Amino acid sequence: MIAIGIDLGGTNVKTALVDVNDGFIKLHSFPTEANKGKEYVLNNIASQVKKLIGNGEYSPIGIGMGMPGMVTLDRKKVKNPPNLPGWKVENVADEITKRTGLPCVIENDANLAALGSSTFGVGKNFSDFIMITLGTGVGGGIIINNKIYRGSTGAAAELGHVIIDYHGPLSNSNTRGGVEAYLGQRFLSRYAADLIRQDPDNPLYKKFSENFNTLEPVDLSKAAESGNELAIEILKKSGQKLGYAIVNYVHILDIRKIVVSGGVAKAGKLLLDPATETAKTFLMPPFLEDFEIIYESLGNEAAILGAASLAFAELS
Amino acid sequence: MIAIGIDLGGTNVKTALVDVNDGFIKLHSFPTEANKGKEYVLNNIASQVKKLIGNGEYSPIGIGMGMPGMVTLDRKKVKNPPNLPGWKVENVADEITKRTGLPCVIENDANLAALGSSTFGVGKNFSDFIMITLGTGVGGGIIINNKIYRGSTGAAAELGHVIIDYHGPLSNSNTRGGVEAYLGQRFLSRYAADLIRQDPDNPLYKKFSENFNTLEPVDLSKAAESGNELAIEILKKSGQKLGYAIVNYVHILDIRKIVVSGGVAKAGKLLLDPATETAKTFLMPPFLEDFEIIYESLGNEAAILGAASLAFAELS
Repeated sequence: MIAIGIDLGGTNVKTALVDVNDGFIKLHSFPTEANKGKEYVLNNIASQVKKLIGNGEYSPIGIGMGMPGMVTLDRKKVKNPPNLPGWKVENVADEITKRTGLPCVIENDANLAALGSSTFGVGKNFSDFIMITLGTGVGGGIIINNKIYRGSTGAAAELGHVIIDYHGPLSNSNTRGGVEAYLGQRFLSRYAADLIRQDPDNPLYKKFSENFNTLEPVDLSKAAESGNELAIEILKKSGQKLGYAIVNYVHILDIRKIVVSGGVAKAGKLLLDPATETAKTFLMPPFLEDFEIIYESLGNEAAILGAASLAFAELS
Repeated sequence: MIAIGIDLGGTNVKTALVDVNDGFIKLHSFPTEANKGKEYVLNNIASQVKKLIGNGEYSPIGIGMGMPGMVTLDRKKVKNPPNLPGWKVENVADEITKRTGLPCVIENDANLAALGSSTFGVGKNFSDFIMITLGTGVGGGIIINNKIYRGSTGAAAELGHVIIDYHGPLSNSNTRGGVEAYLGQRFLSRYAADLIRQDPDNPLYKKFSENFNTLEPVDLSKAAESGNELAIEILKKSGQKLGYAIVNYVHILDIRKIVVSGGVAKAGKLLLDPATETAKTFLMPPFLEDFEIIYESLGNEAAILGAASLAFAELS
């Protein structure tokens, strides 16, 4: 069985043919050109889908598509997706079907990353887990009984906007002291830059003092791996904050498997060990049994694999 | 249809005959005498159950029983219930059946309070809601599709141990800055006492300066209702902290109806208005639609009604 997975982002679109057992058959990526408007983007996606299928070479059962923003319970409409200017409440699924002749379901991309881990990644081992994606923002998905937990309206699992310090900084989303306000890429870079500025002897100072805005979390990871004490400390402090957020997820949901993915998560043990230690310190004792934080290496491909998985689950 | 509901607490046991439509037929309460040990407590409960049924006068379908502590997924065993010294992992359901001849299911009492609200209280209006019980501790239950959400092991909805300030005070449960560490009865009383001590002209100072340990949240409510500015401020600050915790529940679960119960909640608008205002300020905008905090007036009876409701759902 074959389905088409699409991952529509503000910068790039990925389209793929996915086999239910073997994963990717083909994977393409092209610029979204979101500034050209909704019609252009959707037409472009449709023509890429036709290219993927070829001349009747493949017969996909349908299309699963991930995108930013909140998706309605019927999995047809998206509401005001960020980074896609001009898109309001749009029936994306029907628009895609109209252009391709294939049935289509859509879902929030962070939820699909969790589903992708559940079907093709480390999440395969667990019927219930919480997936945290540490990227530009901090997103998440909750898998219960191998399905996405969606909540009353489809907007569940805004895990980056879970408060760990109500005195803390405001994030883009309006929440104060949410975990994204510490581990979101720009927040983490700014926090690091503030500390590095005070340490002129640090190699990171020499490298970035011309323009601290170019410092990325990956620079911290690399420096930490080569023994830079300040970088190690920054990742440790950030990991601890992640740990507090995880305590909140676990105490509410009683799901003890935490899967972590995304660019910032590539810092690996330097970030995840302090997160585990903090979570274990502040979890109520009964929740420690089977508690585990696991790194998901699927990366950005988790969402598009999840998109195809949604098609397999909903359209077959 | 009739069932027996039991609410086993550290101080008192309540037993009731409950009609599926009309609620209480009979309700009794007697001291637990937990110090006399498990056998004594269970024998005592069994003889009270026999009294309730009378001489074949009623034919209940079975027994639902609430108690503190974590209950296993099969709803038979409790694990190390607090306030019942000497109880470890105990198959309470089978012990009750052995003594009464009636089938029995058990469940955590905070979860049952949520189910009681769902079947006999304000929760009747919602298929999905979050119930917060503000008592000695802060407990909770999550209702999804009119059922208790239990999590992977049955331990879900430890809502009082959701962190809102990781710098905050440790609570009994090991968590730092959990909402119980602000709104739990003893924490709230101590916080109030610390402020009242600094205000010798306050009528509350005159009333409690001999022994601030006797100050209870209800004293704050009464003072606030009669215009005591300090008491109003204390309840407002506490309500705000509840508001931050509610943001966390809603962002994770996407459930927008919040039902609040318990002794401290009797402060009513003075506590719940600031909670609502804070939650509305820090919720992401899409979650504001249909968001509402509602007071549950069933009080302590919610749990025992929920216990009977569980019997109706599981044993009929």
